[in-house]
Amino acid sequence: MNKFYEQLLPYLERSHAYQTALALLSWDMETLAPPAAAEYTAKSVGILSEEAYCILVCDEVRDLIKKLSSKKEQDTLNVSEQAVVRLLQKEYKKLSCIPQGEYREFSELCATAQTVYCRAKLTGKFEDFAPILEKLIDFTRRFASYRAQRGDNLYDLLLDEYEEGFTTKVLDDFFSKLRDALVPLLKKVSEKNDLINKSYNARYYPAEIQRGFCRYLSGYLGFDFNRGVIAESEHPFTTAFHNHDVRLTNHFYDNNLESGIFSAIHETGHALYEMGVDDALTGTPAGSSISMGMHESQSRFYENMIGRSREFWEPLFPKLKETFPQELHDVSLDAFISGINKAEPGPIRTEADELTYPLHIMIRYELEKEIFSGKCTVKELPELWNKKYNDYLGITPKNASEGILQDIHWALGSFGYFPSYAVGSAIAAQIYHYMEEKIPLADYLKEGNPVPVREFLRDNIHKYGAVYPTNELLKKITGEEFNPDYYIRYLTEKYTKLYQL
Amino acid sequence: MNKFYEQLLPYLERSHAYQTALALLSWDMETLAPPAAAEYTAKSVGILSEEAYCILVCDEVRDLIKKLSSKKEQDTLNVSEQAVVRLLQKEYKKLSCIPQGEYREFSELCATAQTVYCRAKLTGKFEDFAPILEKLIDFTRRFASYRAQRGDNLYDLLLDEYEEGFTTKVLDDFFSKLRDALVPLLKKVSEKNDLINKSYNARYYPAEIQRGFCRYLSGYLGFDFNRGVIAESEHPFTTAFHNHDVRLTNHFYDNNLESGIFSAIHETGHALYEMGVDDALTGTPAGSSISMGMHESQSRFYENMIGRSREFWEPLFPKLKETFPQELHDVSLDAFISGINKAEPGPIRTEADELTYPLHIMIRYELEKEIFSGKCTVKELPELWNKKYNDYLGITPKNASEGILQDIHWALGSFGYFPSYAVGSAIAAQIYHYMEEKIPLADYLKEGNPVPVREFLRDNIHKYGAVYPTNELLKKITGEEFNPDYYIRYLTEKYTKLYQL
Repeated sequence: MNKFYEQLLPYLERSHAYQTALALLSWDMETLAPPAAAEYTAKSVGILSEEAYCILVCDEVRDLIKKLSSKKEQDTLNVSEQAVVRLLQKEYKKLSCIPQGEYREFSELCATAQTVYCRAKLTGKFEDFAPILEKLIDFTRRFASYRAQRGDNLYDLLLDEYEEGFTTKVLDDFFSKLRDALVPLLKKVSEKNDLINKSYNARYYPAEIQRGFCRYLSGYLGFDFNRGVIAESEHPFTTAFHNHDVRLTNHFYDNNLESGIFSAIHETGHALYEMGVDDALTGTPAGSSISMGMHESQSRFYENMIGRSREFWEPLFPKLKETFPQELHDVSLDAFISGINKAEPGPIRTEADELTYPLHIMIRYELEKEIFSGKCTVKELPELWNKKYNDYLGITPKNASEGILQDIHWALGSFGYFPSYAVGSAIAAQIYHYMEEKIPLADYLKEGNPVPVREFLRDNIHKYGAVYPTNELLKKITGEEFNPDYYIRYLTEKYTKLYQL
Repeated sequence: MNKFYEQLLPYLERSHAYQTALALLSWDMETLAPPAAAEYTAKSVGILSEEAYCILVCDEVRDLIKKLSSKKEQDTLNVSEQAVVRLLQKEYKKLSCIPQGEYREFSELCATAQTVYCRAKLTGKFEDFAPILEKLIDFTRRFASYRAQRGDNLYDLLLDEYEEGFTTKVLDDFFSKLRDALVPLLKKVSEKNDLINKSYNARYYPAEIQRGFCRYLSGYLGFDFNRGVIAESEHPFTTAFHNHDVRLTNHFYDNNLESGIFSAIHETGHALYEMGVDDALTGTPAGSSISMGMHESQSRFYENMIGRSREFWEPLFPKLKETFPQELHDVSLDAFISGINKAEPGPIRTEADELTYPLHIMIRYELEKEIFSGKCTVKELPELWNKKYNDYLGITPKNASEGILQDIHWALGSFGYFPSYAVGSAIAAQIYHYMEEKIPLADYLKEGNPVPVREFLRDNIHKYGAVYPTNELLKKITGEEFNPDYYIRYLTEKYTKLYQL
């Protein structure tokens, strides 16, 4: 092993220990911790974040990165090691321009904001969340400006954290294509709204029984309970401390069957990515997914391309009917498949169907652009939010809880994250197109055998962790870089057929 | 505020952040974490323990402690601050003589040992646990020898960590008194074993329903769900990150009603101690209990003096019968009270009645003395264990799982801990005697009002955290230092009456 790389390892190990502790603190806050603990935990998070910062932002690490970036040393590193150095350098650049005290303050603020946000969402009072949101935006803007070069668009720098290379230029083009194709398509679909009746979905499905079925679904898709756990939280999410400890949550509503099922499938898609990373990368900066876009591509692939397909449900629907014999006694497989694919504008992103989903993302993207270009103040956000929901989806949220307060991301200090949901959906369609050429996907699903699907994804994506950038990985798999046309074609064909347009 | 004390605060805060993270990692390992994560978590625990060590073991902290220990500075500190300095000094002395690398190695070993132990307990193979147990003992012996003065008994140094001042001299005397009184008493009781029939206890009580009732019990006794959570683990235990985040676990067996109920009451006793600590002490070395003996006094007071009393169950037994109407239909309150107090030698400490319980502790105490005096090797432990169980309790464990492997303490690196269970029981009896003189305890319980009990304990014990040493605290409350006579009298009177001796 390269001697400088060897010298780097103890820093990576220490850094990973802190990341594990911080991820566990965050997981615990969202799943279990008692309410009164929040402010104390936030303080601990601030302190530990600062200590973690100090491990990477030091002269020794800086010098090692510098040495390891030279042509001479690069030639002695394998591709994984090269990726580790590249990712570490990026992280170092991002962190080292932030003053230590500010980093701690921001970390503590994010932990506090989670709690403030959750309370505001419960009461629906945006004004209770607005002051801390302003602070979060200020910090984010300041941190981005620290690393900005002349002429950089601040929002581009934020986007770069979640999906390298996907600048506003790329995304403007992407969303404009989506808008042009989907808004008229949705209009046609809406006119035939009565074609699909999914009233069965709002019958009474006790959470306790949903829980068991969803656990079964995760295992069916390949979730490894030896290396992961399933819990519950207000918002479903997945987190991974490393590839041997991957955790997902769900949230069950007694009167909504789909919500729990598709959250389970979606989060399992995320979890399989993390579980599939090669052991050689465990605990290094390359030991997790390459980007949020690629991560979402996996969850949305499972949720939509797999989970909403007739083939997937052919072997499973009888089991679902056994689980809820009364509630589903008059629902046929065909009616169920139509139901879970019905397109209907609603206020909540996470409950959205495939067709309206990207429009929810577009709204957040446009708002974030306006926030960071200074065109929109925090105070103006709720009104602007509602206006855009009216413009794109024809609906007006009843209150802030189902409007501007519905998502936790901003409270976590994550700005520039949302677009990766739409990018992920588009990547999923691109991979799906290619996968169908390579393996008899539909046949496997009909046989009740999702193993080859997971293996395909593991061998082509998961195992590489963050070694290859998104576009490089896409090129390896599909022969081309990101291309949203597959997504537009997929949605158009799917909904044209479903609604007999 | 004293300026040196003020300079100390950031170190205390940082140290507390690490303690929180480490306690959470440990809690998570015992309640939720997936099996395959264990070895990775152990590594993180080792690293973070070392970092926590470095925060306290440094020249700055050493100098501040030295300054703050001077007469001049002590005079400017309040009693809580003086306690913080004293406790910190003790911790510093203990840690600073251990080389940093060894401390990390030991911390990682303890985390690993938990997993190895749990697997060995499942299979009943002591030989699988023996090698790591040897290592744990070696480390413990070495660490104690680092701080030993000429003539110190190593085991005394270990005991001192859990209960200051309770040396082998004190404990030999204590256990000898117990043995002299209890062994003949137990013999007489055993002869009348048929007097009490508790076959009802082994009927079918679904865990799901026990869970609800036990949660109710904890709340009834004063557990504050805003500052605490309840979960499940193989062994019931309580942990506290601070007084606003206190966590207890239980373990339910479908065919054992008592086990869950008395674990719930016992652990709630621990939890109330931690929740009752004054906010001024939160996050400082004085922010938790003074000792394990005092901690156990609270849990055993609730479990036995309160939880096994007729007065306690008078208002609650109807609710228990409502919860299990079929299973308890033929059980009267009197039969239940006799049942939960029945004395019967068994192999498992945590399931033991009040009378045989201290004998379980005595066995462990004697074994630990032999281990650290070098009279007994790890290999010889199972045989010696079984011999002592036969001598004192007249029973032979069926296998290692219900013998030498039944308790997790040694796997956590805790040697010298066990005696505090018996010390705690004796303290509980001493406090009970005094409390009955001060408040109409029985009346409150009969009325279904346990609040004054909790308030009494909070005002006299809990709120002080670790400010006063055990004997000082006992003197404040009861007018005398530790006195085991109350305990012996309590048990003798109770069992003489119950068995009509």
